[in-house]
Amino acid sequence: MYNLKFMNKINKKFIKTSHLIGELKLCTLRLIDNMNFPWIILIPKRANITDITELKTKDQLLLMEEIVHSSKFMKKIFNSKKLNVEKIGNIVPQLHIHIIVRKKNDLTWPLSVWVTKGKSYDKKTLSYTLNKVKKVLK
Amino acid sequence: MYNLKFMNKINKKFIKTSHLIGELKLCTLRLIDNMNFPWIILIPKRANITDITELKTKDQLLLMEEIVHSSKFMKKIFNSKKLNVEKIGNIVPQLHIHIIVRKKNDLTWPLSVWVTKGKSYDKKTLSYTLNKVKKVLK
Repeated sequence: MYNLKFMNKINKKFIKTSHLIGELKLCTLRLIDNMNFPWIILIPKRANITDITELKTKDQLLLMEEIVHSSKFMKKIFNSKKLNVEKIGNIVPQLHIHIIVRKKNDLTWPLSVWVTKGKSYDKKTLSYTLNKVKKVLK
Repeated sequence: MYNLKFMNKINKKFIKTSHLIGELKLCTLRLIDNMNFPWIILIPKRANITDITELKTKDQLLLMEEIVHSSKFMKKIFNSKKLNVEKIGNIVPQLHIHIIVRKKNDLTWPLSVWVTKGKSYDKKTLSYTLNKVKKVLK
């Protein structure tokens, strides 16, 4: 049985532009379909939330815990010390946090990832990358 | 007497490009010198930290509390429901969190604030804006 209180539809735009990795207690994790950067989003499973301030205090702290947890495994599996962690949501208002691995030789370094267009994964690289991230959630 | 454990030099780049607002328990608050957006940064007063994961758990949760607190007053005094909250640090590695008020008629909406160059405040607008933000910290 689902707990209806926590039901939350994932925005269609996310379904189109990202791939399901798995679930943490508060957030759904998805891999952004952009080969240029190892990039996940954390989507809190709470309805009608567009800003961190709208979460309950308990969920705000849980969100921080899950950001830290996800940051750690992203740095580890993609072998980088540098992350960008961003709550933007100008285009898709549903609250989601970007965690993006940055490297000094990546496409836009030291600029933001937002200054360039994305590039979809090819099938093989997508499968390899998704598996790599899914593994740490097991 | 200063508590040496918590001493932390503010990076020179921040001094040049932002103005002191005041202090919270964990973070120093500064106004970014960019008239295009109401924009503050929160700089945790901890030495040699470049990533949220490097803070102690207690400080991570305190950071979330101060992000929420600052988010609330920024939304209120600049009359907007929309914020971008970002940890980037590609250019200045010292950990700092951007809180940027966004509006649907701002210069780069719905794009990131990073797609355009900043514009320094004139003296009058700077003084007005700084006072507005400083007031809420009193």
